[in-house]
Amino acid sequence: MTSSSTRLSPTEITRQAVDSFAATPDARSREILQSLVTHLHAFVTDVGLTEREWADAVAVLTATGHITDDRRQEFVLWSDTLGVSMLVDALAHPSPGGATESTILGPFYVPGSPLREHGADIAEQEAGTPAWIRGRVRSLDGTPIAGAELDVWQNGDNELYAVQDPDAPDDHLRGRFLTDDDGGFSFRAVRPVPYRIPDDGPVGRMLAATGRHPWRPAHIHVVVRAAGHATLTTHLFDAESHHLHDDTVFAVKPTLVHSFAARAADDPARPPGIEESWVELEIDLVLAPSDHPADPFVDGGRTH
Amino acid sequence: MTSSSTRLSPTEITRQAVDSFAATPDARSREILQSLVTHLHAFVTDVGLTEREWADAVAVLTATGHITDDRRQEFVLWSDTLGVSMLVDALAHPSPGGATESTILGPFYVPGSPLREHGADIAEQEAGTPAWIRGRVRSLDGTPIAGAELDVWQNGDNELYAVQDPDAPDDHLRGRFLTDDDGGFSFRAVRPVPYRIPDDGPVGRMLAATGRHPWRPAHIHVVVRAAGHATLTTHLFDAESHHLHDDTVFAVKPTLVHSFAARAADDPARPPGIEESWVELEIDLVLAPSDHPADPFVDGGRTH
Repeated sequence: MTSSSTRLSPTEITRQAVDSFAATPDARSREILQSLVTHLHAFVTDVGLTEREWADAVAVLTATGHITDDRRQEFVLWSDTLGVSMLVDALAHPSPGGATESTILGPFYVPGSPLREHGADIAEQEAGTPAWIRGRVRSLDGTPIAGAELDVWQNGDNELYAVQDPDAPDDHLRGRFLTDDDGGFSFRAVRPVPYRIPDDGPVGRMLAATGRHPWRPAHIHVVVRAAGHATLTTHLFDAESHHLHDDTVFAVKPTLVHSFAARAADDPARPPGIEESWVELEIDLVLAPSDHPADPFVDGGRTH
Repeated sequence: MTSSSTRLSPTEITRQAVDSFAATPDARSREILQSLVTHLHAFVTDVGLTEREWADAVAVLTATGHITDDRRQEFVLWSDTLGVSMLVDALAHPSPGGATESTILGPFYVPGSPLREHGADIAEQEAGTPAWIRGRVRSLDGTPIAGAELDVWQNGDNELYAVQDPDAPDDHLRGRFLTDDDGGFSFRAVRPVPYRIPDDGPVGRMLAATGRHPWRPAHIHVVVRAAGHATLTTHLFDAESHHLHDDTVFAVKPTLVHSFAARAADDPARPPGIEESWVELEIDLVLAPSDHPADPFVDGGRTH
């Protein structure tokens, strides 16, 4: 019988797996894979992951893969709820330096929103209190940016994004807008409400098992794209919302929380088409210069 | 404008994500999730994972989920090729102590193999050189174990397992056997050949990009289940195979490598039904006592 000393120890198994990537031609791929193996093995070793727990993990990943489709991105939900998305964001944008701060993309972005007219309504059916959002896109030095594209999406007062709601038209509560010559934009939206991230899948089961809740504070998503500038992926949070201090995906930054001003139905500044009480938000969106010819979310569809 | 010092640093984001699991009722779940978050964040931070690389990772996981089905388990392939499966095995079985050593289950195990007679052939169609496998299942103290169940499966000389091969019957090259009163078993198989793990999916693209090959050395899979004993999941490797020293899933242990003896067609010991030259392997399979009332792979289907 061969001596048991000839088998590999856990440390040696880790080294062998790391070494298997030593000949990777691309240095960055080699660095990422060797670091991934090192940290993944450290996790397994630290907790002494059992065979049963390993099998459970495979089952969770499999269920995550099978619930993910064109309209549901459960891997992004894992990344969001484990804080990985906000960590990647923080590493990518270490210092705002006067630019509007970024936050997560989230799992509900769908590329190809309709291009709408200045001032148009993104709600294609009843969806809550009207919100008039206007402002200016500018560079760090204050220069207005004409022709910048705002790509906006949000949930309605039924808590759902259109992509989740079989009763909503595909383009409900989303749209793209181009800034005018002085960098200005305006659009009609609805006041966002807090909502639960989809909790009927593996991520929801994790939240329930760990005593975490699935709520996010009310916000409108905005991506701003402009030539020569870094694409900005951010939220407009409502300062009166619940869950600003316990967002289940950790995505709130203080500078992104805004007061939506309440306006009466008879306010003379009422924009055309609004016939009830409404809220208003004026906001400048400030873009950093781009260091990169192509930006990850310019085409939007990469994660879906 | 709010000062940038109010936003969270990467270290603070990690702490916030770890703390979000502080109220997890089950202590083991809390330990696993907090360690997972810590190590996952350390990986992201160490390599400075970019937004584009994050999006690529989400796309790879999504593709892995979508190629995984009842007949293909790409998450297990990732675990195997990153060395995680062998690490979990090493942690679960720190010292064989005289028992037969274990190795990975692999992605091709399908529960519900047919129960076959002592000496029966698992090949339901032509699949290579006949192999006569026989031996005894016993306890650490040498006591033969009657009524133990061997669950065996292997590939044929076309490199495929039945579950991969649309031209093979479902039960080709697999079967279950019960030991007789003196712990003895025997069955006909075929001499295994090296094969490539499925390399037409995300794992295959990783292997190609990193200069790794997809080959595994020739082996027959055996799971042995017996009351009062730890279930043994192992391989019988062929000592004459290629790739014993560079198995792409790191699963070779020296004690699991066996010499298949060559036998001539006119050998008087030729088992019934064999009419050509053949190979023979006699092997004792030694089971450790069980500490657990239920064992992860007793029902076999947990990972599929």
